[in-house]
Amino acid sequence: MNSSQLFENIKKKESYLCVGLDTDLEKIPSYLRSLADPIFEFNKQIIDATHEYAVAYKPNIAFYEALGPKGWESLQKTLDYIPENIFTIADAKRGDIGNTSTLYAKAFFQQMNFDSITVAPYMGEDSVKPFLQFKDKWVILLAHTSNPGSRDFQLIESKEGRKFYEEVILRSKVWGSPDQLMYVVGATQTEKIEGIRKLIPDYFFLVPGIGAQGGDLELVSKFGMNNKCGLLVNAARSIIYASSARNFAEAAKKEAHTMQEEMKRYLDLYCIQPQR
Amino acid sequence: MNSSQLFENIKKKESYLCVGLDTDLEKIPSYLRSLADPIFEFNKQIIDATHEYAVAYKPNIAFYEALGPKGWESLQKTLDYIPENIFTIADAKRGDIGNTSTLYAKAFFQQMNFDSITVAPYMGEDSVKPFLQFKDKWVILLAHTSNPGSRDFQLIESKEGRKFYEEVILRSKVWGSPDQLMYVVGATQTEKIEGIRKLIPDYFFLVPGIGAQGGDLELVSKFGMNNKCGLLVNAARSIIYASSARNFAEAAKKEAHTMQEEMKRYLDLYCIQPQR
Repeated sequence: MNSSQLFENIKKKESYLCVGLDTDLEKIPSYLRSLADPIFEFNKQIIDATHEYAVAYKPNIAFYEALGPKGWESLQKTLDYIPENIFTIADAKRGDIGNTSTLYAKAFFQQMNFDSITVAPYMGEDSVKPFLQFKDKWVILLAHTSNPGSRDFQLIESKEGRKFYEEVILRSKVWGSPDQLMYVVGATQTEKIEGIRKLIPDYFFLVPGIGAQGGDLELVSKFGMNNKCGLLVNAARSIIYASSARNFAEAAKKEAHTMQEEMKRYLDLYCIQPQR
Repeated sequence: MNSSQLFENIKKKESYLCVGLDTDLEKIPSYLRSLADPIFEFNKQIIDATHEYAVAYKPNIAFYEALGPKGWESLQKTLDYIPENIFTIADAKRGDIGNTSTLYAKAFFQQMNFDSITVAPYMGEDSVKPFLQFKDKWVILLAHTSNPGSRDFQLIESKEGRKFYEEVILRSKVWGSPDQLMYVVGATQTEKIEGIRKLIPDYFFLVPGIGAQGGDLELVSKFGMNNKCGLLVNAARSIIYASSARNFAEAAKKEAHTMQEEMKRYLDLYCIQPQR
């Protein structure tokens, strides 16, 4: 999938919602636990309930890895179940020396068939580039994350007067086109999103931190959108755990629909579409 | 294992060798491929052949993850096979928001029972601290890595005149004691190791980059050692692929022994032991 196709999906669904599949055995309805693969069964019902409002799904790999080999099987089944025209993100935050990054890329892109993977920038170009060698596959590079610790290193000022996350963006944007490279920009960083959009007008942002982490969807949309939307906004816990009862999928659907309706408004308000 | 126990093992074996288990199906002797679990069989023979010279083993998680659920089984069997008094490192370079890092920590420390894990610092304190909540378990934080891309971000100068990797070290060292926190310092950074040792006199360094990547063991030892050794030097390809023939384990043993003998000399020369 390239960025135009992604934008087509966004326009068709009037949504830039990414549903985070942070599926936790301890949080899913207890009746599912007696099934052979409770994680997949939960995800399947969530996907069935939300796919008309979502343009992307983002399994958080830690939740599957924590379950051992069985977790990887649940992950693969989940991925295979996601409808073909929906963008898939392996939230894995990998990144290692070249030959090792190549292995991670093969695992997530070729073996599992994800469309994209989140990558940590600390080890530099040769740790990121191997992920950019696959046709129609994407790197989503951490820029300014949504967590409290994002202040510790990402805000260190360089001697040129830029924040470290700005250095990461400026140096990395030449590694890949806006058809293969996105950036993670936390929804809790609303006061900085406008500046980041100026640095990289054409790149998509993956925005975590709405909902449980406290980010504001309208501010993110107002300051982060470009004329091809340019945003994928992730919500996980607020959707998938909207209810812990048997009707969890219905509750997730309602929550996803509410977000989609809000997103429709912001697309109308803030996404200056070329054809207008 | 705490740092004193680690130093005891180093003195006993007169070695600070870490053997990297970067086990690649395409590189192991072909006769192993017909076995039920060729990866484990290879690792088993490597461990049998090298354990008297090694104080640590470091499986590179990408190599196992790339094989899907079967790879994780080979990894667990390998880990269970490593003798108890040898330090184990999950070279995973994980790091995510707090609740996700906790899941990774549980996966590697509780489920798989690794002694330590490598962690990427970019997301800051709340992405690292969850790994420091486990008794006798270690975080090995990326400081200055051995790859070419280490120059891209790690050498950016802050407005205080420090390199970014120095900022990472200075800010993170208060998060954990030298009994639970180490740093990755690449062997290709010999001119900087002396300076890093001054910043953190008491912390262990995990040093990759000897062998295939071109680092110099004597320079690393001369400038990096403290009075408790303070070094774990990793060698992977140069040991485990010393031969691609049926006698690969014997060749690995010979190579590990050669490195151990060199390390014995440097321990005598550069590690000022308190009892002398």
